[in-house]
Amino acid sequence: MAAGDSHVRIIEVGLRDGLQNEKTELSIEVRHELARRLALSGSREIELGAFVSPKWVPQMAGSSELISAVIEERSENKKDSAFKKVRLSALVPNLHGLEGALKTKVERIAIFASASETFSQKNINCSIKESFVRYKAVIDEAKKHGLTVRGYLSMCFGCPFEGKISEAKVVKYAAKLKEMGCDEISIGDTIGVADPAQVTRLGKALKKEIGAKNLAMHFHDTRGTALANILASLEIGLRSFDSSIGGLGGCPYAPAATGNVATEDVVYMLHRMGMKTGLDLQELVETSRWLQPKMNHELPSKVKKAGLPI
Amino acid sequence: MAAGDSHVRIIEVGLRDGLQNEKTELSIEVRHELARRLALSGSREIELGAFVSPKWVPQMAGSSELISAVIEERSENKKDSAFKKVRLSALVPNLHGLEGALKTKVERIAIFASASETFSQKNINCSIKESFVRYKAVIDEAKKHGLTVRGYLSMCFGCPFEGKISEAKVVKYAAKLKEMGCDEISIGDTIGVADPAQVTRLGKALKKEIGAKNLAMHFHDTRGTALANILASLEIGLRSFDSSIGGLGGCPYAPAATGNVATEDVVYMLHRMGMKTGLDLQELVETSRWLQPKMNHELPSKVKKAGLPI
Repeated sequence: MAAGDSHVRIIEVGLRDGLQNEKTELSIEVRHELARRLALSGSREIELGAFVSPKWVPQMAGSSELISAVIEERSENKKDSAFKKVRLSALVPNLHGLEGALKTKVERIAIFASASETFSQKNINCSIKESFVRYKAVIDEAKKHGLTVRGYLSMCFGCPFEGKISEAKVVKYAAKLKEMGCDEISIGDTIGVADPAQVTRLGKALKKEIGAKNLAMHFHDTRGTALANILASLEIGLRSFDSSIGGLGGCPYAPAATGNVATEDVVYMLHRMGMKTGLDLQELVETSRWLQPKMNHELPSKVKKAGLPI
Repeated sequence: MAAGDSHVRIIEVGLRDGLQNEKTELSIEVRHELARRLALSGSREIELGAFVSPKWVPQMAGSSELISAVIEERSENKKDSAFKKVRLSALVPNLHGLEGALKTKVERIAIFASASETFSQKNINCSIKESFVRYKAVIDEAKKHGLTVRGYLSMCFGCPFEGKISEAKVVKYAAKLKEMGCDEISIGDTIGVADPAQVTRLGKALKKEIGAKNLAMHFHDTRGTALANILASLEIGLRSFDSSIGGLGGCPYAPAATGNVATEDVVYMLHRMGMKTGLDLQELVETSRWLQPKMNHELPSKVKKAGLPI
């Protein structure tokens, strides 16, 4: 393990990246309760939803109400508010989405760019260049209102349409997102193809260009390599990881496959390695088990199934 | 990645360690066909079965017939015999089992010891010390007949009854197995609790004591850490890993949980990292998909489900 801080940041994305890839649509109330349980498990960063059309992404319907309700619960400023110390964020695709987000007083937004030209066209109907113009306007407006901005960069390790993605391109786009005002760039292995050697190479190049503090790594466990990729990231000094409770989520390009790496699996490995996350692993497992019967399939988290060892 | 050979040995244990933990009992014919498909996928080391009582382990019934049939197929010495270059092995618990193995002319046996005193008592009804006396007689007899011997050491990273297992004890027992004549020691994370930091510590100590060439690492993916543990092993120069096609197997101490790491998941990561195994990944995936409908549950291999990326 490379020298460095033993504290690791875990950014919970199950309520957004996870749920938007699930068939089941959870009610606002259940999502609120899930967020509360995550906060009580020690989550300090939760992406709560997305300001996208429920016509296209029905799983995110009611994000505005959900975020408002959570913020109201937090602002009551009760000593026992689960959300007291939690930073909340929401995905916004454009200025219209940002308007919605601003109404809720959420403190952080996220934008979703791609390192693959073909995927950008298919996913958001515009070129990477056009998307950056659009996002620049969103970021500028968000900053005016004092919000921080997370920039997702997807398909950084491979694309279902283009295959290999050039590492130089990924570094260029990540640097561009930083220059545009993103406080953090989340480097996505959106289809779960990355291997640890690739993570070491790309991670080092990214770290050199934009600094470890501005980077989060976002791994999907589609081919089982997510924890190995997190290990490779830790070894080069990266300390921020996105994950999804229970392993919520999937991979639209491999319907039977697993998506986001499960929060409790990440935390199991990290804690056992002596790293600190501030999360309570047993509580996470219980949250995951509480969530399970609400979904239409077995969640892929391994620690949820196996339990904690003595 | 630490300096070292880019060639990695994969020891296929699905037909023994995998199947003996599955509910489904496969016929001798299906097991023969599975072994043939594995050999055609490039497997060069296959553990075919165990000389144990079918009363206790019905899944291993007919191991003698299976091994004899495979050896007969190989000895026909046809140019196209799938098994031509495959080293075959069988687990034997005692001298009686060895007698059975000798009749088949299998070239390698394996014995199964434990680093946990409580597990030894519960699993094989004797102390570790007593088991070593028993195995010494088996190894001596096997060597007289020109066989090589693999020594499994189980519960090296944790025990379901004792919890933590002292690393010094694991090193001591592994050294003892080598001294007794084992050509290779397989270091087992039998209940899938290991983390990469532990693997690095224990792996370095073992390597120092008995040498990388005499070590194989045997990880279960019960808590999702198997590939990360393999990465940690590679980084300290270890190059031999046990795995199980499809992830065949389970964990008797966590009934819902996953057991052996899947061969195709290991090979996916290794090949993508630029390591060589001699195995054909696409063929392995097809073998795993051929096997799936014969089992009573979804095999946990992730690459089997997701497929290979473009």
